[in-house]
Amino acid sequence: MPDTRKYVITFGCPDRTGIVARISSFLAELGGWITDSAYHTDPDTGWFFTRQVVTAESIPLEIDELRARFAGIARSLGAEANWKIFDSAERRRVVILVSKEGHCLYDLLGRVASGELDVDVPAVIGNHDNLADITRAHGIPFHHVPFGKDPEEKAEAFAQVAKLVAEHDPHAVVLARFMQILPPELCEAWAGRAINIHHSFLPSFVGARPYHQAAARGVKLVGATCHYVTADLDAGPIIEQDVLRVDHTDSVDDMVRKGRDVEKVTLSRGLRWHLEGRVLVHGNRTMVF
Amino acid sequence: MPDTRKYVITFGCPDRTGIVARISSFLAELGGWITDSAYHTDPDTGWFFTRQVVTAESIPLEIDELRARFAGIARSLGAEANWKIFDSAERRRVVILVSKEGHCLYDLLGRVASGELDVDVPAVIGNHDNLADITRAHGIPFHHVPFGKDPEEKAEAFAQVAKLVAEHDPHAVVLARFMQILPPELCEAWAGRAINIHHSFLPSFVGARPYHQAAARGVKLVGATCHYVTADLDAGPIIEQDVLRVDHTDSVDDMVRKGRDVEKVTLSRGLRWHLEGRVLVHGNRTMVF
Amino acid sequence: MPDTRKYVITFGCPDRTGIVARISSFLAELGGWITDSAYHTDPDTGWFFTRQVVTAESIPLEIDELRARFAGIARSLGAEANWKIFDSAERRRVVILVSKEGHCLYDLLGRVASGELDVDVPAVIGNHDNLADITRAHGIPFHHVPFGKDPEEKAEAFAQVAKLVAEHDPHAVVLARFMQILPPELCEAWAGRAINIHHSFLPSFVGARPYHQAAARGVKLVGATCHYVTADLDAGPIIEQDVLRVDHTDSVDDMVRKGRDVEKVTLSRGLRWHLEGRVLVHGNRTMVF
Amino acid sequence: MPDTRKYVITFGCPDRTGIVARISSFLAELGGWITDSAYHTDPDTGWFFTRQVVTAESIPLEIDELRARFAGIARSLGAEANWKIFDSAERRRVVILVSKEGHCLYDLLGRVASGELDVDVPAVIGNHDNLADITRAHGIPFHHVPFGKDPEEKAEAFAQVAKLVAEHDPHAVVLARFMQILPPELCEAWAGRAINIHHSFLPSFVGARPYHQAAARGVKLVGATCHYVTADLDAGPIIEQDVLRVDHTDSVDDMVRKGRDVEKVTLSRGLRWHLEGRVLVHGNRTMVF
Repeated sequence: MPDTRKYVITFGCPDRTGIVARISSFLAELGGWITDSAYHTDPDTGWFFTRQVVTAESIPLEIDELRARFAGIARSLGAEANWKIFDSAERRRVVILVSKEGHCLYDLLGRVASGELDVDVPAVIGNHDNLADITRAHGIPFHHVPFGKDPEEKAEAFAQVAKLVAEHDPHAVVLARFMQILPPELCEAWAGRAINIHHSFLPSFVGARPYHQAAARGVKLVGATCHYVTADLDAGPIIEQDVLRVDHTDSVDDMVRKGRDVEKVTLSRGLRWHLEGRVLVHGNRTMVF
Repeated sequence: MPDTRKYVITFGCPDRTGIVARISSFLAELGGWITDSAYHTDPDTGWFFTRQVVTAESIPLEIDELRARFAGIARSLGAEANWKIFDSAERRRVVILVSKEGHCLYDLLGRVASGELDVDVPAVIGNHDNLADITRAHGIPFHHVPFGKDPEEKAEAFAQVAKLVAEHDPHAVVLARFMQILPPELCEAWAGRAINIHHSFLPSFVGARPYHQAAARGVKLVGATCHYVTADLDAGPIIEQDVLRVDHTDSVDDMVRKGRDVEKVTLSRGLRWHLEGRVLVHGNRTMVF
Repeated sequence: MPDTRKYVITFGCPDRTGIVARISSFLAELGGWITDSAYHTDPDTGWFFTRQVVTAESIPLEIDELRARFAGIARSLGAEANWKIFDSAERRRVVILVSKEGHCLYDLLGRVASGELDVDVPAVIGNHDNLADITRAHGIPFHHVPFGKDPEEKAEAFAQVAKLVAEHDPHAVVLARFMQILPPELCEAWAGRAINIHHSFLPSFVGARPYHQAAARGVKLVGATCHYVTADLDAGPIIEQDVLRVDHTDSVDDMVRKGRDVEKVTLSRGLRWHLEGRVLVHGNRTMVF
Repeated sequence: MPDTRKYVITFGCPDRTGIVARISSFLAELGGWITDSAYHTDPDTGWFFTRQVVTAESIPLEIDELRARFAGIARSLGAEANWKIFDSAERRRVVILVSKEGHCLYDLLGRVASGELDVDVPAVIGNHDNLADITRAHGIPFHHVPFGKDPEEKAEAFAQVAKLVAEHDPHAVVLARFMQILPPELCEAWAGRAINIHHSFLPSFVGARPYHQAAARGVKLVGATCHYVTADLDAGPIIEQDVLRVDHTDSVDDMVRKGRDVEKVTLSRGLRWHLEGRVLVHGNRTMVF
């Protein structure tokens, strides 16, 4: 997270000559000091994307006024709703969903506690309660929402989770090894904000027990994938992936253990990029600026 | 390849107490100087595997006599045919099959020319002839066997390839981006010797145009897999895998280009291990000792 | 840490024919069930090393009796004091030293809490107290030992640390970004047990502020090194190293932040291997079996 | 290398507001179609850098006229001589210097032969002649320039090399494991064009026999560094680095062998980026756009 207050602009429109000039001239005329900028044109679809970061103090406008003026540029370039401006001074809120396995949660809590991940975590929600104590030791409320086995109980549990999440209107809902498949209506409600860590190098080993699948196939690397959640299981846009080497001496349990380090690091990288507005989604692919 | 002459023993049998003692005592009684040894027990199947390397000069027996005596040990431990002893002084022969793409061939020829890969390559066989000149410049015969499109022409071409390969009885048949699917009878004839490089991180992106598949899925790493060829396409035992990072700025062509470096390095590692007798196959998995 | 009770033997002696046979026959005669074994001969020094793991229940002796009998073998092979047998059922004790930066401590505490690192942590000692609360939330005593600036205060502080550590006679003293240079007498007292994480890819960037040094030199990868502490600063035997990619867009602060993930993962791997008796030291180098 | 003809602009100047707007407006007014662009501000020195790629056909000017007009912009922004525009249609010329070890040369020749590296290699110069035949088999002239041991012979040899290189006025002089230290006058003459591959992860193991140094230190990773040659041995701006894992079973010879794969891949990446105008040097550091 940046120390100096910044405005972060993300933008996409059909490609044509002069887009960069339009946007940079708009910012230059305001006196905007660009500290970071990235551009990409997707040759398959002919779309152009950019992310611009300007120091807030260099812009003599309130953010709403900036948005209003930029809307004109965006409209004239055909960007429609494909743009956003956010203020780095607005604290990001992250709600974390967990099940029994704590490695991703421990990791995130450590990053928050040390200030490395400078966000608010107003709630951790677990379908088990074994991670309640450590969460509360960090001064964060833990909500235990048990998930029954039959569909009705599950639906009720999800309704409760949905309500808890909605109360905080978070910038990210992190499924930190949550192990429950989100119902379509939650995928919809949290679209572009729900981030999952899948414990395989997708698209290999979709679904349950990926390390068991990996061991059975005899692969020499296992991995983890941080992706946005969509209604298609483990098929949402990939934000980040990483792998580590395994060999024949590694049992499934060894893979599970070693894999945790890749999972937690991959998740935290993906989450950070999401919160910094670095991840733009186009179709089922992401650009990470 | 070792400089000093060595005998390399590979062995597998059902696990029980005392196997290491039996084998190491057998070698110690002969005065065998072990320079490398590795063991593995597969907990799922209860099998034990080992690879032992002894200096030839420390063993006062011809290799056939050594094999004859070791056969007794092997039988008593229930190893049946699951063992082998080879002499590092017997030069390894490698036949290479190629299509149009030369990066793996160039790489292998360079390794052979520099002595890094200390093998004989008695033949390179290509279904195109664009790699003939460079092969011959290395003093290696190149055989052009065109593959027609209809099944009969293909069958005939494969018969010709089979004949050419059989003439050299190679220790390895390397499919260096050969791009043709081997018929079942060749998979059978070359079982345990046919080594393929697949240009994806299997089991992701089986079959044709894996980089196109990878780009469409938006993965953040692409890879290559060196594996033994079996009748199941791209599903044989994996010897080695590696990956490299890509991002949204990489077009399919960029992935193809970058991927070549992973392909050639992964193939050459797998081939070396195979030729050194380091790769033991158990079911559909390998141990690399 | 193994679930089944095991005896772990580590052993080194001058190389000669028949060592493996001697040791494996000794174990086989006792009925010892070997579950893991590794061997290495150092060609430079002509020394032989091995690590053997047997299930405790397969050995019909108490561990002291096993040690007494094995001592005869060891003596006859010239191993002198270069061997050890430990019982995996004896819980490992780890004392952790910290300063202000918490990422390695958070990571270790998370691993302990989740049972992944199945050890006792009887004490965390810090020269600052900002990590006291989280340590105590894990049910672990935290000792704040302030280090003054002048030599006498430091010496006194170290004496206090030495005393606290000695009370627990730990299997490992982990310098989890402790940032203080151990006096020679503590290097001596904790020899082979004091494990440091240095935030660079040694031998590059010894000493203070390695990320600043890395940025100044314009390297494209930064790393971390887990090593045994010796009286030579940052020059002890290396247990594990890893790196991550940086580029010109990374400020020193970014490197510091990104580097933390490599540091904590590298430290935890090295510590695990040390506690499992996998790390044998020979001169200034390690073998990790 | 791009297929479509492009103009590549690289530019650096003291940072201030509006630079991007100035440059992009200049290009937009010409109708320039930007296909790739990157920006970076160095916070330590307050300099701004950019690389812009436009399709040649979108610019209705000859390149000299484009340069003349851009010079005005550059001057007004204080860029002085810190900018360049080159035409991707002008074929790049690369002269390669070698000694005995061929792995980097084999690799580069293979890339050139396959069209992956779309450059002219008008000369390979070696102080040994063992790589002459393979070079000539690729249709490339090989010049054998023996280097004596005494200073005068060396000076004369370098003078001959300088002359041969000067004849081709190459865009890059590649020291592909050349193993001779360039005299200061050649460092000067080839400044910004002489690219070396050093067989260690610099700044570790400067100078001779880095793998021996690495083995003696007991590191767990070895690497390679592609850098611009300067008068300070192995201290020039780093373009690219990579590493691979080694362990106690790897002899120095194994490290040398394994390291070759990292060397050749790292060199070829650095060379490609240099030829594409992606590498901007600022002080002793590079930006790779």
